[in-house]
Amino acid sequence: MSIRVGIYGYGNLGRGVECAIHQNKDMELVAVFTRRPPESVQILSNNVAVYHVDKASEMKNDIDVMIICGGSATDLPLQTPALASLFNVVDSFDTHANIPAHFDAVNAAATAAGKVAMISIGWDPGMFSLNRLYADAILCEGTSYTFWGTGVSQGHSDAIRRIEGVQDAKQYTIPIESALETVRSGKTPDFSPREKHLRDCYVVAKEGADKARIEAEIKNMPNYFADYDTTVTFITQEELNQNHNRIPHGGFVIRSGKTGANLENQHIIEYSLKLDSNPEFTASVLVAYARAALRLQQEGQIGCKTIFDVPPAYLSPLSGAELRKHLL
Amino acid sequence: MSIRVGIYGYGNLGRGVECAIHQNKDMELVAVFTRRPPESVQILSNNVAVYHVDKASEMKNDIDVMIICGGSATDLPLQTPALASLFNVVDSFDTHANIPAHFDAVNAAATAAGKVAMISIGWDPGMFSLNRLYADAILCEGTSYTFWGTGVSQGHSDAIRRIEGVQDAKQYTIPIESALETVRSGKTPDFSPREKHLRDCYVVAKEGADKARIEAEIKNMPNYFADYDTTVTFITQEELNQNHNRIPHGGFVIRSGKTGANLENQHIIEYSLKLDSNPEFTASVLVAYARAALRLQQEGQIGCKTIFDVPPAYLSPLSGAELRKHLL
Repeated sequence: MSIRVGIYGYGNLGRGVECAIHQNKDMELVAVFTRRPPESVQILSNNVAVYHVDKASEMKNDIDVMIICGGSATDLPLQTPALASLFNVVDSFDTHANIPAHFDAVNAAATAAGKVAMISIGWDPGMFSLNRLYADAILCEGTSYTFWGTGVSQGHSDAIRRIEGVQDAKQYTIPIESALETVRSGKTPDFSPREKHLRDCYVVAKEGADKARIEAEIKNMPNYFADYDTTVTFITQEELNQNHNRIPHGGFVIRSGKTGANLENQHIIEYSLKLDSNPEFTASVLVAYARAALRLQQEGQIGCKTIFDVPPAYLSPLSGAELRKHLL
Repeated sequence: MSIRVGIYGYGNLGRGVECAIHQNKDMELVAVFTRRPPESVQILSNNVAVYHVDKASEMKNDIDVMIICGGSATDLPLQTPALASLFNVVDSFDTHANIPAHFDAVNAAATAAGKVAMISIGWDPGMFSLNRLYADAILCEGTSYTFWGTGVSQGHSDAIRRIEGVQDAKQYTIPIESALETVRSGKTPDFSPREKHLRDCYVVAKEGADKARIEAEIKNMPNYFADYDTTVTFITQEELNQNHNRIPHGGFVIRSGKTGANLENQHIIEYSLKLDSNPEFTASVLVAYARAALRLQQEGQIGCKTIFDVPPAYLSPLSGAELRKHLL
């Protein structure tokens, strides 16, 4: 029998989840839930219902796992606990500092309802976290680095758009190749933000706006840009639409560590992602963990789980024997 | 209280495990077991007993996890089932084709004894298997590649040493950079063995041996060398001892896959290792999974487990809350 999945929230991430469900033969998309008028939402799938979010609670017996595709700032802190009292759920909550509080709220709801709720699934938090954990546990004397990019930072793009006179903008985070090479060579410097990443901005100014002032405001913006070497290029809306319409991302998790009686041997573990579409890759991770959420709940586990708690085998539709034969 | 660990077999791997235990503050080395006369074995640790293997069964209440450091060909198929009836155990069984049979034998013994037995822990099988599984589960439409090296292949070095007239030899497996780049670009060719790896051999010939014949025998050896571009360099024993006395290894697991309504977006996941010492890195993985073996058994799980079955959090000495706060 197929795993019956619901999608709660239908933006870029929700659409990515929809595509990923169709790639997984053991899964079936049951319904998409939206805050917009359902009849105004056109989804990619034929014969799949679109409902208003208010209808979700009526479908608690029809959905094995709900994948929640809201934003971390205001949506997920409310949505995930509420939905975890009705469904097994998976979310991509990515505000690192607030993960402990989110965990507690979701854990209370999921435990009371006898459901499994996976939070902070994706690639960072997510696969990058996992690789930090594995590498730290194996090379216990060492140093870990995370680099991001080349990719679009939604937060930094939004910050530019809030500047007076800016019509539209896209910001790329770019890891500095020489810093990557330093880490790969086993050196373990304390990098400043400027030494790890560049910030490359493409900005559409409103007609008559003062470009010099906009550029200065960007480059001097605390936290977002002031600590980095930042380039600003003004382009037209047409150029932005045509040349910067994708949402690539990726990055690197690298740990170097030493072993041996005198720590004479050095080891480098590196995990990297190069993604054409950040939301579609995140969605693919969410869908694999939806499979795991259901299995955990079927074997009697309940409560909030993170990517650290899931046996890798549970992500795969293959049996233990098949995995041992073909992938071990 | 410390995790009390025993080492069964004291070669390169056993010595690596000994070093790794000392790097992990929550672990304590209780004893080393050897088939040699114990008084003839000098270990690195002070105040740790060396016993003959026959004494292991007497220490079943003194050791939480036994790390078995025998060879896969003849030792582990006997040792792991026997020891799993006495201890929680971890081994590095690496004969891929025989893993299912080894699993069954070990599972029967461990289940009967109420112990946890982890098999095939290391990096391949091990961390590479894990990365194949994760990448396959996330990018379900895609192609995976494993490359090995640059590193010393014990099996290939041994095969050369068995040739008439060879005194000593070291063989390096080298991944072909252009093949790596092809895979990283998202292309998915079917490589022949020759297109993925080079074999680079350093050979010490016995006095008066026919070097041309030795070189031809190496290059034409079926399975081991005939399907590869192989270079043979004759050197002196002194050169071999001085320049080829390390045991580096490593490699790459790369998966490219596509997502999107029309599979229009491509993603590359890459995991790589660059290891100064193959046995010491393998040992570091074994020790982390020893921690996990004990935790699994303490929570009531029994039987044979592989790297696919272990929640990542169990590898770390940190609590769930600490992991979520610092690594997620």
